[in-house]
Amino acid sequence: MSILRFDPTTNDWVIFAPSRARRPHELRQGARPDKPTSLGDTTSESVPTCPFCPDNERYTPTEIFSVRDFPQGPWTIRVVPNKFPALRIEEGNDSVEEAHRFFRHRGGCGAHEVIIETPRHDVFLGHQPVEQVELLLQTMQSRFNDLLRDSRFQTIVLFKNHGEAAGTSLQHPHCQLIATPVVPRLMRLKLAVATDYFDMTGHCLYCMLRDEELSTERRVLVSNNDFVAILPYASHSPFETWILPRHHQSSFGDLDGWRFRPLAELLRIVLLKLYVGLENPAFNLTINSVPRGDEDKTYFLWHIEITPRLSTPAGFELGSGMSINTVLPEEAAEFLRDVDVSG
Amino acid sequence: MSILRFDPTTNDWVIFAPSRARRPHELRQGARPDKPTSLGDTTSESVPTCPFCPDNERYTPTEIFSVRDFPQGPWTIRVVPNKFPALRIEEGNDSVEEAHRFFRHRGGCGAHEVIIETPRHDVFLGHQPVEQVELLLQTMQSRFNDLLRDSRFQTIVLFKNHGEAAGTSLQHPHCQLIATPVVPRLMRLKLAVATDYFDMTGHCLYCMLRDEELSTERRVLVSNNDFVAILPYASHSPFETWILPRHHQSSFGDLDGWRFRPLAELLRIVLLKLYVGLENPAFNLTINSVPRGDEDKTYFLWHIEITPRLSTPAGFELGSGMSINTVLPEEAAEFLRDVDVSG
Repeated sequence: MSILRFDPTTNDWVIFAPSRARRPHELRQGARPDKPTSLGDTTSESVPTCPFCPDNERYTPTEIFSVRDFPQGPWTIRVVPNKFPALRIEEGNDSVEEAHRFFRHRGGCGAHEVIIETPRHDVFLGHQPVEQVELLLQTMQSRFNDLLRDSRFQTIVLFKNHGEAAGTSLQHPHCQLIATPVVPRLMRLKLAVATDYFDMTGHCLYCMLRDEELSTERRVLVSNNDFVAILPYASHSPFETWILPRHHQSSFGDLDGWRFRPLAELLRIVLLKLYVGLENPAFNLTINSVPRGDEDKTYFLWHIEITPRLSTPAGFELGSGMSINTVLPEEAAEFLRDVDVSG
Repeated sequence: MSILRFDPTTNDWVIFAPSRARRPHELRQGARPDKPTSLGDTTSESVPTCPFCPDNERYTPTEIFSVRDFPQGPWTIRVVPNKFPALRIEEGNDSVEEAHRFFRHRGGCGAHEVIIETPRHDVFLGHQPVEQVELLLQTMQSRFNDLLRDSRFQTIVLFKNHGEAAGTSLQHPHCQLIATPVVPRLMRLKLAVATDYFDMTGHCLYCMLRDEELSTERRVLVSNNDFVAILPYASHSPFETWILPRHHQSSFGDLDGWRFRPLAELLRIVLLKLYVGLENPAFNLTINSVPRGDEDKTYFLWHIEITPRLSTPAGFELGSGMSINTVLPEEAAEFLRDVDVSG
């Protein structure tokens, strides 16, 4: 069972998902979850203990979607519900005032899905053929648009966790999505800031930022006719990398079919440069897009953010919300531009 | 050299401190910093390689402050500049518009100090005599108030990182403070929310929250005549614990002398319960207080937040800013209340 509780000091909704939980005593330091097997393994066959490998389909909840070359053939990409969901379609969606005025909660209505990127247990996304990366991005959009048909869901957060320091415990390459019944505060903030900018100038803040980064060139990592990868001027952490469309578009759900190939090509190069340059760092990847109903507004540009987990936010960052970045993005960009991934 | 850069998508200032840096190639996964020696060590003598141990004072920058039983006697608590500061008093404080309109930075003017809690290399704060904890809190207030005399500093963030997962690499018990030339966004948000509440109701939001938690009792961990420790209703992470004064006070800098003892007593119990119950978890501790000039306003209550680092925020949290908490605070509170620390 999941619920959301409202934090009146920050106006955040916090997801409580005790079914994902270890019990309190299991959170002790000596009782951390098992570490995943090393990413250095080069097993390309099905791993008996991996629920995402072929032949182990019975260990996942019922399949939601799959890509197959022919019906009943082997799958290439597979989407299943998360076995320990943060939010679930079956949960309620009512807001409830408790007896005390500050204590408000609502049902944990939402969705939490896993997108298994490949049947192969150990092939990193950047090492996949570009066709497979393209298929994955198409599958992500397909799930994104399908879930938005449910009017209870306000945003769909698409993300990938790679490596233990990025919060994943399963080695088999996978992405995830969570559909939320409220617009998360960080997204509300970004939209409010971008709306203000649009109201004042008539321009999309993100398109303007992209164009300024393109004109200075210093923080541009790589680009093609349709997309640009930059390390933003005010990156919050070392080697933070954004992939932005060259054409304005608010929602990832509206990306045209012919743009998936150039996006896959650029994403693959960026991931490989990080993989080689930083020796397979843990990272999170998120797709940032507008909430339901804002698709036709022109103040936000959907984009991908990749955040290598190279440092640990500590007390200062937690207490202030302010980031300390030890690497200037123009130096990081220069370093990554020199990384050869053509081989 | 440090600078702050403005992020126009979130209105955050980001601190860039390349002098704290490893170079880009040093951030590779295979080149992480040395792990601290195990906290399981029971060395009570001076450790030759520890810059915070007695006899090694020459390895720190020039002492700023110390507590000694008599002049020239051995120190009990010692405050020194951080050797790799995020911000420095010597840096400029001007805001600079770069040639491109979105690129704005300002000098990294501020302060970054280390408060060495004890001469003993391996004695956890919760295991210190209550007199030593009291001295530490008094020292923190003394540095807080001293730095606020510099009108360039807007907030002083006091914090402690305990354990590698909480971002510390040095075992010797220490706290830190960072004085910032801007009010960090999270603090601005909390103040805005609390100000709105005060404007609407005439009450301090935090005092009301504290009183509601006291009236339900379910999430109260421990209290005395002057302070209350609770696990808040909408905690963002498992076992998040707040210590709040029972009397309204906006600034930690105004805490009266006779309140340090009861605060030290309560803090010690809370730390011991976490230490025993969760087997010495990594945690961050922060003191939340109003920025310069808001000391006499009645809409914010200074308080301590302790955040055990039991889970890793992943892509969803980074992309949405929304937290997933797997432990209900009332269950965590019940678990910790049963932990016996009287021995």
